[in-house]
Amino acid sequence: MYDLILKNISRFITLTPEEEQYFTSILKIKKLKKKQYLLQEGDITRHEYFVNKGCLRTYAIDEKGQEHIIQFAIEDWWTADLGSFISQSPADLNVQCLEDSELIQISYNDLQQLYIEIPKLERFFRIIIQNAFVAAQKRIINNLSLPAMERYIRFRDQYPKIEQRVPQYMIASYLGITKEFLSKIRAQLTNH
Amino acid sequence: MYDLILKNISRFITLTPEEEQYFTSILKIKKLKKKQYLLQEGDITRHEYFVNKGCLRTYAIDEKGQEHIIQFAIEDWWTADLGSFISQSPADLNVQCLEDSELIQISYNDLQQLYIEIPKLERFFRIIIQNAFVAAQKRIINNLSLPAMERYIRFRDQYPKIEQRVPQYMIASYLGITKEFLSKIRAQLTNH
Repeated sequence: MYDLILKNISRFITLTPEEEQYFTSILKIKKLKKKQYLLQEGDITRHEYFVNKGCLRTYAIDEKGQEHIIQFAIEDWWTADLGSFISQSPADLNVQCLEDSELIQISYNDLQQLYIEIPKLERFFRIIIQNAFVAAQKRIINNLSLPAMERYIRFRDQYPKIEQRVPQYMIASYLGITKEFLSKIRAQLTNH
Repeated sequence: MYDLILKNISRFITLTPEEEQYFTSILKIKKLKKKQYLLQEGDITRHEYFVNKGCLRTYAIDEKGQEHIIQFAIEDWWTADLGSFISQSPADLNVQCLEDSELIQISYNDLQQLYIEIPKLERFFRIIIQNAFVAAQKRIINNLSLPAMERYIRFRDQYPKIEQRVPQYMIASYLGITKEFLSKIRAQLTNH
């Protein structure tokens, strides 16, 4: 049940059997159906989530009601509205299942306690958040500096599994372009 | 000499006098003149930097030779090419002084040792990187969802000190618009 999350953690730190037991004792499984929300704008993000199975999208809605996808998450990824989680304030973001999904959740209070009991986990979360920051910064650079076709090619190369599981119009939203423009790009790539 | 960095750290953790002494013993001051580079693309980022005095910009250069500003940093901010620093691989980014600047630097190896000697500092860096990630994610959302004028207004509100110290064409670059377009926006705002 917790194999995937333990493997995920073992990439950066090594837990003793006792620590592993303590860590898994605070985990809870949450199952959601396709289209259900893990989190909606205005909710307080009470948990950090690890995707054990399934696929989700994180998006913001602008003043005109348009959706903008910030992140996709599939198996072996962490997800949440981190801004809402760390300040325990209302979320700006929505997190919705694109497939039936199984999440492993850690509550805010349990995580604070975990940092104290197992400081190695503080290291783990420092490292994964550093990696997430670097990825977010690369995305800002790409959005500022690369044409849409190149951004699409990189997205496909970087996340081949997501491309196959997510509707095209959501990929267009993630790239900040219309779905018509993405169709054009895909047609151009196919003809080459 | 180290008052500002110690105050910065004390926002999230409390060091004992001994820890404070150990921490400051590994710090080094680096002074640079206006226009000098703290880091250039291709360099390995050997240090994490805290701005004790001055103003810097971090930017990427795209394939057409155009610059895209990712971040400004003034007193009390941390800066580096974090992707390069954590992997000790060549930087994608350039960090240049916009004023004569004084940085406080921590080397990669010293920081790894510091995490072991003073685990509280691992907590500190986890927290500031979380905050940086949330800010980066907000910027991605704003870039996708807000018109340029609104992005400029928010930038000005959020970083009033930077607006005063940085040339307009760099702010345009940060916002992902031309300097002509920024002039138009500013004129519109003045006329209201």
